[in-house]
Amino acid sequence: MHVPERGFPVEEFEARAAAAQSMMADRGLAALLVCTEPEVRYLTGFHTPFWQSPTRPWFVILPAVGKPVAVIPGIGASAMATTWVDDVRTWPAPRPADDGLALLADTLDELVGGLSGGTGVRVGLPMGHETHVRMPLADLDALRERIAPATFVDATDIVRGLRMVKSSREIAKVAHICDVVSGAFEGIGDLLSVGMTEREAFKAFRIDLLQRGADDVPYLVGATGPGFDDIIKQPSDRVIEPGDLLMFDTGSMFDGYSSDFDRYVAFGRADDDARRAYETVWNATEAGLAAARPGATTSDLWRAMADVLDAGGSLGNSVGRLGHGLGMQVTEWPSHTADDGTVLEEGMVLTLEPGLTWAPGRMMVHEENLVLRADGPELLSRRAPAELPVI
Amino acid sequence: MHVPERGFPVEEFEARAAAAQSMMADRGLAALLVCTEPEVRYLTGFHTPFWQSPTRPWFVILPAVGKPVAVIPGIGASAMATTWVDDVRTWPAPRPADDGLALLADTLDELVGGLSGGTGVRVGLPMGHETHVRMPLADLDALRERIAPATFVDATDIVRGLRMVKSSREIAKVAHICDVVSGAFEGIGDLLSVGMTEREAFKAFRIDLLQRGADDVPYLVGATGPGFDDIIKQPSDRVIEPGDLLMFDTGSMFDGYSSDFDRYVAFGRADDDARRAYETVWNATEAGLAAARPGATTSDLWRAMADVLDAGGSLGNSVGRLGHGLGMQVTEWPSHTADDGTVLEEGMVLTLEPGLTWAPGRMMVHEENLVLRADGPELLSRRAPAELPVI
Repeated sequence: MHVPERGFPVEEFEARAAAAQSMMADRGLAALLVCTEPEVRYLTGFHTPFWQSPTRPWFVILPAVGKPVAVIPGIGASAMATTWVDDVRTWPAPRPADDGLALLADTLDELVGGLSGGTGVRVGLPMGHETHVRMPLADLDALRERIAPATFVDATDIVRGLRMVKSSREIAKVAHICDVVSGAFEGIGDLLSVGMTEREAFKAFRIDLLQRGADDVPYLVGATGPGFDDIIKQPSDRVIEPGDLLMFDTGSMFDGYSSDFDRYVAFGRADDDARRAYETVWNATEAGLAAARPGATTSDLWRAMADVLDAGGSLGNSVGRLGHGLGMQVTEWPSHTADDGTVLEEGMVLTLEPGLTWAPGRMMVHEENLVLRADGPELLSRRAPAELPVI
Repeated sequence: MHVPERGFPVEEFEARAAAAQSMMADRGLAALLVCTEPEVRYLTGFHTPFWQSPTRPWFVILPAVGKPVAVIPGIGASAMATTWVDDVRTWPAPRPADDGLALLADTLDELVGGLSGGTGVRVGLPMGHETHVRMPLADLDALRERIAPATFVDATDIVRGLRMVKSSREIAKVAHICDVVSGAFEGIGDLLSVGMTEREAFKAFRIDLLQRGADDVPYLVGATGPGFDDIIKQPSDRVIEPGDLLMFDTGSMFDGYSSDFDRYVAFGRADDDARRAYETVWNATEAGLAAARPGATTSDLWRAMADVLDAGGSLGNSVGRLGHGLGMQVTEWPSHTADDGTVLEEGMVLTLEPGLTWAPGRMMVHEENLVLRADGPELLSRRAPAELPVI
């Protein structure tokens, strides 16, 4: 298995900054402020699991011209210094009385040439769907007052626009982890058996994914039984029985990029209703693949898959959509819903995720990962078998 | 190894709700709103890695009296139904045009007996240090307008007060994962050797932790070399050489509770400066242990450790504190800093984490985990050797 190169060359970050700055110019933004892990990583390359600690806020400012500037806790200075960012400003966090606010406001002021200047300085900050501001709300409110008359305006469309279409290097990373996970799913018959508990099955599968080359398995959910409708579940001590279905869904990681697909298997035998449900979601995925081409919309994908699910007797679907974007996070923009309407572009990495309730309390969700090429979809996950596998 | 029972009995959640409601009554809060993973899990028991998907907001309201009420995306209904929560209200998320806002506002209105009633209804929402509001800022701003004249007021002290002192069941979970991780660190000499790359070492250690009983290893950072100061680092292809130091720091999980401690080892030999640095941080930890008793403060702990570090010739420390709280997250309130001043209480689970720079670009951080008992600290991590281990 060819393992893609780690990290990105500087030109990748230069291209990201240039694309952002072009959109910023169109919108009249003096700067872009981001404070969440994927956005900071996207603009700088800063990559650490330290974000799991909620204690300290982190900020990156992209000025209208030039490289991003990091305004971060001192503990991150050494790691940030290894990225392409030159201007790294730190404060001794945690310092609740001023956890970076003064430094951030001063840096913004400097980078925009005066926050109080001109006819109303506008600083972009993602505040729309799928975003949040990762700093204390009290500090955010104080920051808004501090930068007045300058204002924060929504920049969701900028980070969404940047991240939704992937570069070839990004695609290679997702492709690699999908390849690793495909192998693990194909080997599941050798790994799991009747008599194991769910907890033992999770452990065996997680370790197998790591042994096959996943850096980490941050997202692993699953269930066993004759049927189930909790599809974001953690394992229990339930023992796998003959005739059970098992579902695993994983977002495993390679170099900061995620897979996101699931598989169902049956132990020993599968009943006809489960087989039919599987065929329906498998066929719905085929319909989604046939509809996936640049210029079509996420709602076209949704319609193509929903028609198959409806015809297959679906009793509904609690997921709220039939797939989504994929990349640095296990789910990203856009969503395949009836009214999302995002126009598909070459280079988007997407999941197709048709799901149906095939009996009360019994849901089946099928998922594949693809990259959209000029002439249609290229699967990144290896296509699931057309019939429910029995192991 | 005795494995603690999974989950919590209902009385644990009843006690949490009652404690919260007592503080809410003191502060005149009509309800408490939380929207972040640890707070939702703390009040409900809802436990899934699905929070890694940024797409959907999740809300739990604790009214002045009675059980919490969940206002969540449909995909979580089945999982939330398995908790002690009875009142689970869902909307078909993602739905950007109204991603739960109307349902949330209506539910709040119902639970507080009218948002526009009385002399100003106040709803608690954590907005202070170590918190953030996990929903789009545009939606939060709209929600603030929608609930007016009712207002959100800071409830950080409530969730901080609840979570900072652990129950015996919570302590047992942290103790267990600390036991697992202690075993893995003690076995590191059999696992790692000169000639491995950092990436191979991370992989071997992560798999070993899972095999020993960690549910997951979401936080693993480390470094190798003659010295290093990036202590939140991901692995590279650097090959371990004789005389290298290696640091691993992990937040591994058992049943939703985390360890957080590190260890240093040297391969083949260790130079005198590294040995002295190790002895200094080890002795600083001893001083912290001696100072840790109910009634002392986090600043007393800081002072006790800082004095030893200063005497040992520390050139500084970028971490910003000398330890912190630990539990559902790898770091939690409080922080051991010069001016934090939090009074220590029986049942707090804490790290002691003295660090120093022993040469330019070379930092050493030592860490142990403890629970505070009436008569002093009880170590949860098995105490590191007093001298830098050479493997």
